[in-house]
Amino acid sequence: MTSATLQAIRYQRGSLEILDQLLLPHQTKYIPINSLELGHDAIKTMKVRGAPAIAIVAALTLAVVLVQSSTSSSLSTAEQAKQFIEESLGYLKTSRPTAVNLFDAAHKLAAGVRAKAKADGATGQDVVQKYLELAERMLEEDVKDNMNIGRFGAEFILKVWKGSEDLRVITHCNTGSLATAGYGTALGIIRSLASQKHLTHAYCTETRPYNQGSRLTAYELVFEQIPSTLITDSMASALLAQHPDKIAAIVVGADRVAANGDTANKIGTYQLAITARYHNVPFIVAAPSTSVDLNIASGKEIHIEVRPEVEVTTLRGPVVDLDSIKKDSSDVEFKKTGEGDVVAETIAVAARGIGVWNPSFDVTPAELISAIVTEKGVVLKDDGVQQFGMKAFLSGESI
Amino acid sequence: MTSATLQAIRYQRGSLEILDQLLLPHQTKYIPINSLELGHDAIKTMKVRGAPAIAIVAALTLAVVLVQSSTSSSLSTAEQAKQFIEESLGYLKTSRPTAVNLFDAAHKLAAGVRAKAKADGATGQDVVQKYLELAERMLEEDVKDNMNIGRFGAEFILKVWKGSEDLRVITHCNTGSLATAGYGTALGIIRSLASQKHLTHAYCTETRPYNQGSRLTAYELVFEQIPSTLITDSMASALLAQHPDKIAAIVVGADRVAANGDTANKIGTYQLAITARYHNVPFIVAAPSTSVDLNIASGKEIHIEVRPEVEVTTLRGPVVDLDSIKKDSSDVEFKKTGEGDVVAETIAVAARGIGVWNPSFDVTPAELISAIVTEKGVVLKDDGVQQFGMKAFLSGESI
Repeated sequence: MTSATLQAIRYQRGSLEILDQLLLPHQTKYIPINSLELGHDAIKTMKVRGAPAIAIVAALTLAVVLVQSSTSSSLSTAEQAKQFIEESLGYLKTSRPTAVNLFDAAHKLAAGVRAKAKADGATGQDVVQKYLELAERMLEEDVKDNMNIGRFGAEFILKVWKGSEDLRVITHCNTGSLATAGYGTALGIIRSLASQKHLTHAYCTETRPYNQGSRLTAYELVFEQIPSTLITDSMASALLAQHPDKIAAIVVGADRVAANGDTANKIGTYQLAITARYHNVPFIVAAPSTSVDLNIASGKEIHIEVRPEVEVTTLRGPVVDLDSIKKDSSDVEFKKTGEGDVVAETIAVAARGIGVWNPSFDVTPAELISAIVTEKGVVLKDDGVQQFGMKAFLSGESI
Repeated sequence: MTSATLQAIRYQRGSLEILDQLLLPHQTKYIPINSLELGHDAIKTMKVRGAPAIAIVAALTLAVVLVQSSTSSSLSTAEQAKQFIEESLGYLKTSRPTAVNLFDAAHKLAAGVRAKAKADGATGQDVVQKYLELAERMLEEDVKDNMNIGRFGAEFILKVWKGSEDLRVITHCNTGSLATAGYGTALGIIRSLASQKHLTHAYCTETRPYNQGSRLTAYELVFEQIPSTLITDSMASALLAQHPDKIAAIVVGADRVAANGDTANKIGTYQLAITARYHNVPFIVAAPSTSVDLNIASGKEIHIEVRPEVEVTTLRGPVVDLDSIKKDSSDVEFKKTGEGDVVAETIAVAARGIGVWNPSFDVTPAELISAIVTEKGVVLKDDGVQQFGMKAFLSGESI
């Protein structure tokens, strides 16, 4: 990870700190994670979010605990160490029972540890050492994968871009350092373009109803001093009409990619893909290859989760000091308690009694997607074909 | 106005009350307007909003004041009455210096009054009487025009609808009783469909950044017990994909319609028009013919106003009692002061320092509009033609 990039997860052997995302974007505070309970709590209470980030924090929490306990007699034998690791992973998994990446990571770590414990003459120390290597490699590889996604995506955009030197990109939701092990996927592409001085401006949608864009992506863009502007989700089309020759691409992440390239992602992604098509702007999906699920033939097989109504009708945030609101600035001051803490409240933004539909994501058909960027390279559609061959790509046939 | 319809403006000769929209949707409170100062304040502080509604409230404020002062010696002669009316309208106009409808209304009222004052033998009473007739006719005609828009729009939707009996409509922003003299334009079409029992469901977008949809349209739909659901602006496309055979139309209002049919309306309208096209759903603009500006050839001539950044990055609303938030309900309780008033706060929903683009409206090209519904009838495009002939329609050539 480069030093210029926001680090939501700070790790070195024996020590882990995470950026408390519950306090973002209004307070930047790292909290140390040095026990299984603290790691479990951080995931459960959403101090860390984003599927890859959750898996990494769980894996590294146990890594820190193992280093602290390395001289403990309870880890003396290979069997003891294996048992402690399995039990600890089982406990950490209960922090977010629906997180697929977390379960995958725990499964891989446990399998590696079991294999080591079976080896002839293996000690408790050997098993612990094996776990540390696996967990640390997970962090490194996730960041490395994201940097490759960023590099491939930036290359692709520069290759297809026919506009002026004023190259701008729109993104949706948060796919950055705050959602991954580091660097990010779609936001990684923006980081890569910016670090190569090819990007003049990034636009982030606020991403209703949970405002990951205005809260988190905007925070990352401000942090890294990338010239950027926040828009509401409904303004993307007006923006494309306003700058027909400046927006080089809309880049988004993916929760899941089907075998044909249909992509499930944060609600609003599909609408952006439709407007990208109408304006003839490339629509790019960025995701690690682990997000591709070859067992799903197409988006039709993806069940859309519907979330609580109250997520749309209420919003939580720090209370603004009304005297600080100026006509020509978005900067405001917050009300504080006697102890200096920011006061946060939840307010209602809708009429009582109205029904709400709150799907957490939507499915964008492959037809509307220009390219799928993974850490292994860029997947395109053949001429005239409306689907991606994700299986052939992943098996190396089309690289 | 039917009794079933929400009345934001309650008027009878000598008395005016308006629904305080600053307290909506959380408190329903009518305030009496019986002086020029109260009328001026109601408009200036946004207790009433929506261009037609503002004009009507200003006109009726003066009507009430004139009835109260009818025996005053300062209205004895025609010249005195004319002068008082002109001065009063001049003062009321300063409440919202950018409101075109308000200026138009004041101009028409003053012209009628001047003509009457010039007539042979006219008394102060005659001039006052003339004003009252003109102002009251303005209210009646505005509501009548909206009811005609509603009827024509509903007829058109039923004519082109090829789906099942489960007929649903999506609308954007607020174009109802709270924005007009009564009944509404696009929401008038929904009212008309509902009153004829042809509508099974209405969807309203929340309409970021000012949330007119979630606050005002949702309030009107709940008030009139029309089965309805709130969605974020970004969910419209996912909704169309979910119900390909149930959404009969997307209906919206208009701030201004150009001679070719290009339409300026609340930000987000253009994006909805694009998704309507992609899903092959009729996209209908509803507006009184006074919104058509034949001096504007096309949307290219419409300058887009950009509003303060803080409107996107902060939101105001009543503070929710956290204990009242339930997982399976959108209904919540509000914190109250000792006096029983709802506590309202402004919260921040974005990272500090992020730039914001906040255009108040966008322009939808005629190409994407299926029909423009006015009180005089429905305007369509000729086959293969991508523009509306608004001039021919308004001059009666194509009716």
